[in-house]
Amino acid sequence: MARIGRTAWVIADGWIPPGSTGDDPSLISHEAACMLNANEVPATVNFSVFFSDRDPIGPIELTIPARRILHQNLETLPGAPISRGTDYCVLIESDEPIVVQHTRLDSRQAANALMTTIAFPCD
Amino acid sequence: MARIGRTAWVIADGWIPPGSTGDDPSLISHEAACMLNANEVPATVNFSVFFSDRDPIGPIELTIPARRILHQNLETLPGAPISRGTDYCVLIESDEPIVVQHTRLDSRQAANALMTTIAFPCD
Amino acid sequence: MARIGRTAWVIADGWIPPGSTGDDPSLISHEAACMLNANEVPATVNFSVFFSDRDPIGPIELTIPARRILHQNLETLPGAPISRGTDYCVLIESDEPIVVQHTRLDSRQAANALMTTIAFPCD
Amino acid sequence: MARIGRTAWVIADGWIPPGSTGDDPSLISHEAACMLNANEVPATVNFSVFFSDRDPIGPIELTIPARRILHQNLETLPGAPISRGTDYCVLIESDEPIVVQHTRLDSRQAANALMTTIAFPCD
Repeated sequence: MARIGRTAWVIADGWIPPGSTGDDPSLISHEAACMLNANEVPATVNFSVFFSDRDPIGPIELTIPARRILHQNLETLPGAPISRGTDYCVLIESDEPIVVQHTRLDSRQAANALMTTIAFPCD
Repeated sequence: MARIGRTAWVIADGWIPPGSTGDDPSLISHEAACMLNANEVPATVNFSVFFSDRDPIGPIELTIPARRILHQNLETLPGAPISRGTDYCVLIESDEPIVVQHTRLDSRQAANALMTTIAFPCD
Repeated sequence: MARIGRTAWVIADGWIPPGSTGDDPSLISHEAACMLNANEVPATVNFSVFFSDRDPIGPIELTIPARRILHQNLETLPGAPISRGTDYCVLIESDEPIVVQHTRLDSRQAANALMTTIAFPCD
Repeated sequence: MARIGRTAWVIADGWIPPGSTGDDPSLISHEAACMLNANEVPATVNFSVFFSDRDPIGPIELTIPARRILHQNLETLPGAPISRGTDYCVLIESDEPIVVQHTRLDSRQAANALMTTIAFPCD
């Protein structure tokens, strides 16, 4: 199989909406980094989170098993408290090629809004 | 004509919303892989679907006729039951260059939400 | 100035919503190909529209003046009747480099939905 | 660290919605260019704004400090009055590599709509 993906990705518009509408847990406002590891080996993935007014935090290490996906909620990165309503960017570096897509669900008003983009591949 | 497209594409944020609002069939929540085959010959396209907790399924083969498009609903890939409300990723491989765009319509709440991105070209 | 853009672009998820909500003309459901010509000379741009069940139509020629933009409503391409509620793809070829972004506004339900993506550059 | 980003980017669908719903300042309709400067040095960033019917304006210079982000509201670029409800495109040139993501929030109707895309890298 051809190499599926890249090893460095950026999400530039990080902002977790500070409120939500409705009781359904899947309708809580959130942002996710959705990742595919199509390789036959696990991928070790490191997140660095950048801000407008302070030094970046990280790297925060996650593992995606071989031939598995991980849709990572960006509010719950281990050890990296990203406050809601804060501008941030994320650099995602992996030892194996992966693909990253960024999605936000915003349910602050009475109907949810969605946005998505393939993240930017840096290598 | 120049080569229009690529032969391997990834959609990383697959998730079919589990509910819908309204009676219009076109407003049922869904995800689609929208594909263009601008070539003078048919394209044989293979879908592999990856999950967080089990082995990938596929390949699932579809054909796009010469100089035609296919907007494929991802819930109705032949032989590949993707449950609603399940995280997944899709790898799309074609023997001829194609272009792939990923779109989700989410009508769980009382007004629909949309998101789209050109998929990630891997070759 | 460096070369700004490319000469062949694809929009793969074309679909103009068949209805709209509200009286504001800017809230009528529509799709647009938003284009920048940053060059010192006009760009001659040709649109070809592909369908699932019939031969493509076009090329439809437009001109973008030097150092100007054109946000082209895809329903009103001259001589190319794209029906609402029809799946289509668009190939945009230009004699000068341009940049193309695809956007849909869907106001069928009581609040509008938006989606956008940079189109796919083929050259 | 590898080079993170590029030095010329285009946003092709610029349009700031002319109205908003609700009292929350973060729900005012707006467009943003969300940028990451992952470098160890500041990035000097120049915005040029293109229109359909007049000459471009700019460059408008901003600085992003080293290892910082800037989510720039496009309505408040210094010295560049972009009217709401006007079609425009933006060329962003930087002396250091950056990553740019374009986002619009449209709250004209009773629930907000969102759209985003990684901008187009020109170099």
